[in-house]
Amino acid sequence: MKTLSFATRLNSFASRPQAAWPGLKGKPTVLQMVERAARVGGLTHLDLNYPDHLGGGAAQTRRQIADLGLAVNGLAMRYYTNPAFKLGAFTNPDPGVRQEAIDLTKRGIDAAMQAGAPLMTLWLGQDGFDHAFQADYARLWQQELDGIREVAAHDPGCAISIEYKPNEPRSYSLLPDCATTLLAIREIGLPNLGVTIDFAHSLYADEQPACAATLIARHSRLLGVHLNDGYGKRDDGLMVGAVHTIKTIELLRQIRRDGYVGPIYFDTFPDTTGLDPVRECEVNIATVKRMMEVVDRLDRSNRLEEAVAAQNAVEAQAIVQAALMAPDAT
Amino acid sequence: MKTLSFATRLNSFASRPQAAWPGLKGKPTVLQMVERAARVGGLTHLDLNYPDHLGGGAAQTRRQIADLGLAVNGLAMRYYTNPAFKLGAFTNPDPGVRQEAIDLTKRGIDAAMQAGAPLMTLWLGQDGFDHAFQADYARLWQQELDGIREVAAHDPGCAISIEYKPNEPRSYSLLPDCATTLLAIREIGLPNLGVTIDFAHSLYADEQPACAATLIARHSRLLGVHLNDGYGKRDDGLMVGAVHTIKTIELLRQIRRDGYVGPIYFDTFPDTTGLDPVRECEVNIATVKRMMEVVDRLDRSNRLEEAVAAQNAVEAQAIVQAALMAPDAT
Amino acid sequence: MKTLSFATRLNSFASRPQAAWPGLKGKPTVLQMVERAARVGGLTHLDLNYPDHLGGGAAQTRRQIADLGLAVNGLAMRYYTNPAFKLGAFTNPDPGVRQEAIDLTKRGIDAAMQAGAPLMTLWLGQDGFDHAFQADYARLWQQELDGIREVAAHDPGCAISIEYKPNEPRSYSLLPDCATTLLAIREIGLPNLGVTIDFAHSLYADEQPACAATLIARHSRLLGVHLNDGYGKRDDGLMVGAVHTIKTIELLRQIRRDGYVGPIYFDTFPDTTGLDPVRECEVNIATVKRMMEVVDRLDRSNRLEEAVAAQNAVEAQAIVQAALMAPDAT
Amino acid sequence: MKTLSFATRLNSFASRPQAAWPGLKGKPTVLQMVERAARVGGLTHLDLNYPDHLGGGAAQTRRQIADLGLAVNGLAMRYYTNPAFKLGAFTNPDPGVRQEAIDLTKRGIDAAMQAGAPLMTLWLGQDGFDHAFQADYARLWQQELDGIREVAAHDPGCAISIEYKPNEPRSYSLLPDCATTLLAIREIGLPNLGVTIDFAHSLYADEQPACAATLIARHSRLLGVHLNDGYGKRDDGLMVGAVHTIKTIELLRQIRRDGYVGPIYFDTFPDTTGLDPVRECEVNIATVKRMMEVVDRLDRSNRLEEAVAAQNAVEAQAIVQAALMAPDAT
Repeated sequence: MKTLSFATRLNSFASRPQAAWPGLKGKPTVLQMVERAARVGGLTHLDLNYPDHLGGGAAQTRRQIADLGLAVNGLAMRYYTNPAFKLGAFTNPDPGVRQEAIDLTKRGIDAAMQAGAPLMTLWLGQDGFDHAFQADYARLWQQELDGIREVAAHDPGCAISIEYKPNEPRSYSLLPDCATTLLAIREIGLPNLGVTIDFAHSLYADEQPACAATLIARHSRLLGVHLNDGYGKRDDGLMVGAVHTIKTIELLRQIRRDGYVGPIYFDTFPDTTGLDPVRECEVNIATVKRMMEVVDRLDRSNRLEEAVAAQNAVEAQAIVQAALMAPDAT
Repeated sequence: MKTLSFATRLNSFASRPQAAWPGLKGKPTVLQMVERAARVGGLTHLDLNYPDHLGGGAAQTRRQIADLGLAVNGLAMRYYTNPAFKLGAFTNPDPGVRQEAIDLTKRGIDAAMQAGAPLMTLWLGQDGFDHAFQADYARLWQQELDGIREVAAHDPGCAISIEYKPNEPRSYSLLPDCATTLLAIREIGLPNLGVTIDFAHSLYADEQPACAATLIARHSRLLGVHLNDGYGKRDDGLMVGAVHTIKTIELLRQIRRDGYVGPIYFDTFPDTTGLDPVRECEVNIATVKRMMEVVDRLDRSNRLEEAVAAQNAVEAQAIVQAALMAPDAT
Repeated sequence: MKTLSFATRLNSFASRPQAAWPGLKGKPTVLQMVERAARVGGLTHLDLNYPDHLGGGAAQTRRQIADLGLAVNGLAMRYYTNPAFKLGAFTNPDPGVRQEAIDLTKRGIDAAMQAGAPLMTLWLGQDGFDHAFQADYARLWQQELDGIREVAAHDPGCAISIEYKPNEPRSYSLLPDCATTLLAIREIGLPNLGVTIDFAHSLYADEQPACAATLIARHSRLLGVHLNDGYGKRDDGLMVGAVHTIKTIELLRQIRRDGYVGPIYFDTFPDTTGLDPVRECEVNIATVKRMMEVVDRLDRSNRLEEAVAAQNAVEAQAIVQAALMAPDAT
Repeated sequence: MKTLSFATRLNSFASRPQAAWPGLKGKPTVLQMVERAARVGGLTHLDLNYPDHLGGGAAQTRRQIADLGLAVNGLAMRYYTNPAFKLGAFTNPDPGVRQEAIDLTKRGIDAAMQAGAPLMTLWLGQDGFDHAFQADYARLWQQELDGIREVAAHDPGCAISIEYKPNEPRSYSLLPDCATTLLAIREIGLPNLGVTIDFAHSLYADEQPACAATLIARHSRLLGVHLNDGYGKRDDGLMVGAVHTIKTIELLRQIRRDGYVGPIYFDTFPDTTGLDPVRECEVNIATVKRMMEVVDRLDRSNRLEEAVAAQNAVEAQAIVQAALMAPDAT
């Protein structure tokens, strides 16, 4: 993370379409959204959804993005093509639907390789349950692991990153939090598996994100970092640092220490209320850069290390609040 | 709030007793805790619990505190003298216990007047219910209001401030949040009633504290501000700004605008894990002072006002993050 | 509630469309959904969304529904026609958009009268905020009340029911819970205003629904009851009694005591995972009927009353668990 | 679980002491509480806290309990003897305090063996953190595992059961949920380790308890089942089935299928509000017995199995609600 790189959610750039494309009928095309994203100062990467964003072919999409000065960071699966996926992708009660989800994922992995971005993020949000007595949990767990194993084995050259989230769309997800995800990964045992930590998902799962990151570093590896913010009751998609400023700084410091070198991806939802997505992304980039300066100030001496070694929260807060709000004093 | 004044929780100063009083057997006395609190640089006021902290008499306690350079800000009722209060103070099913709670409160109000601090804070945490089908909610509401009315009428010269909290010790409190408290106050209709906002209670009630403050300003009046922090699942009692830095700054700006001039009280729990309470309080004071400087920076121009008028969260975040972390840039 | 009547959410009947309309392209029409709902044994009423469901005109829609043996219970506003509503309907920063929302609501009220169902439910989910420092809370409150007052005054013969919900789509709603809604209604002071309690929203707001119902009965009036279930973290839309069986029974008993005679409306989401909406609604009706039998058993003697008077949770639970699971024993 | 056995929390029997021991000064003795517990019809076992309840020696306490017709189910550690434990037992920053906690635990294990109950439950509630930047999470994890490994290796004949809980007393626990606990157990790799599932802790951790039980069965083994109920925001300690009736039934069915044969332990808090602990325990036993009858009705045919295989929540609810409330119909 010496030189920071930044990725962002492409669908954000459908926000407030009339401002970008006066007279546009319907939704913008993928290429239009890419062009708008390319206007963000400091942005380096894009993540694309499969299959939605790859309609023009992976190689061509990669070229178009490169021509605009950006790189593809990776792909993320979306299971919306068959309405039956609503009841489960890898854990659907229908074996045919399960296989369809697995096959779709394999094609997505192929597309990621063709796009020159050997990273596929799996958010298996449909795999879970809503009502008690709806599912055989042991069977679901087996199916989920079988599915992940099959797609991870499809191409050992493509990193497969599991993005956990506790609820929504299902009332309970099968992979709700960091530890359950790590338990699954250990059981599967394939080396190309890893974890994506989404800050708001981690809050939603009642985790301390920096603590989750250390668990991931110990038991698997961190393949993606999604920043945003929220209030812990749901996936709010707020701007970086808007609520949990200090927790975000703690996470940024932790992943730097643990050697994460990938891009910081903004998984925010400016489109929900029609915010300007270009400016929103630029403010997020500026916020992260300022946060990294706070991290630098924290690491200028070993005072914080000493406070942490003693679990002395008072001194740690004294140091952190000063580094945050009174940079000259530190 | 031109000149900030600061109050704090006296019981915090029982934390880590051997550090303050080597060789002490048992718990420190009230006076010992006061003496320790008086060492906090910048502290101006103390709040006392009734009856626990007033054993030596209100007038004498006031004098002892004044001799140490502090003032009494107000008293807060504690209903621990009769174990029957666990099932309810003003809403106890036993009319005798109800009257005992009311009479105790009246004596507390008398003590507040004698202590020269005409402010009594009521946190009616025992008044609520745990199980469905345990209580007649309409009857409880009537009893709660009757009790508050009777004690508020006892001495119109003493301000009575209701401090709400959603849960704990009861699973559900009868006065869980700002709006329910205001509904009760409007129904009672006595002018010496008001509201204390406790930051962590407000988070716990899923409120935006600054928004709660404006509701209080519109429907009643703000009589107390308890700062601390937490994660919204319970009353964590963390240090100021430790989690919700920006929400705390927003609250401080809002109450200054609404004309609050009382002390900022720290309702934190350093004693839970044996933190140094003197240093903890000093760090809290330093944090609030820095936050007020951020507020000053925010109000230096009308840029934030313009963003707020447009409900433009992107510009507002750009301004707030810069004022927080990059003071020179603003 | 002597003779129970049941209403339901029309959009549920778009679930699993191929099962109902083999070969259907696209979405079913309103009339198709009405026809499917009419197959539910025991269903008596429908609620319709305005403007979405009234495309054919209110009078004609009413007739078509009547021809199928159902009645219109009321209308509910949906603010989706202008994307600008995402940032607020009655509280939009743009005065023109605010007026557009108000005018749309007035036309909805006119349609409700024409449909012979003088009940308009307002769920003002867009009126709120996401980020700290995004909005002037006092101004939003004034605008919200001004808007409600204007539409309530439009036709005093139409009951206007406010349905509160704490979060989603906005991170914070302006009318998040029962007490805030009642505070707003008291301030507006118009007699045709009332409240709709949605069970899952009430859980989401950390309320005990039966307690919320008594607050509504005291300060305003209950105009709608939406049953469903959930886990309190979000609006899950689960089947009635699926999680909080006893809380639901408590609510049913409370509203019967308080004189509620309107239909029980099922605000569940079978369409989210493609459940059979006809069967789902029939099971919900059967569950409520069984619950009312439990209520009857509870009220067969005054044993529960005595336990409640003493706030004796142990005896209350003994009585309730027996009435629930061992009907012969009671 | 063919013949159900029931254990309970001994400290509950300090509730309402004047009713049991008129004229008692101070708190009841351990033996007094045991005698009172022995009056509960149907109770078979007690769990004891170490060191608090073993003052008279393990062998003698075991005999006294046996003389009253009960058996000791197991011991549970309590780390209250040194106030320094508040900042951590196995994860305390002071190596001397860490070793003191480990040594105390070993003596507790010895006492469990002497009491003829080779089961020690570890709830490591102090091992966690409150503020961001307070602790080095990787170091805490290593210390926690080292501590558990050392005490588990102390006597391979004593089962060591870890009881997880997400928060309280610390804001975040190091072993907050089922999956993190299983991850720790897999890493330690000793065969006498297992997991205790506490129903209210599981809700508090946003788990579906029956799903957690299947994870435990797959990755380790279930050594204890604590029933109670709550609202998911904290450890309410309510009576069994008071809130989540159906979830409790689902858990009971799941653990019977997975072969759990130990006692059902009631971890409820009647003492919090002075409920009658004897009657409270009897009602809990009656509720569990009724719930097992519901489980029997559910398993009378394979209809529920078929609904579950199809993840058909509608049919599953139809079957479950009928088995719960209308036993004759099933």
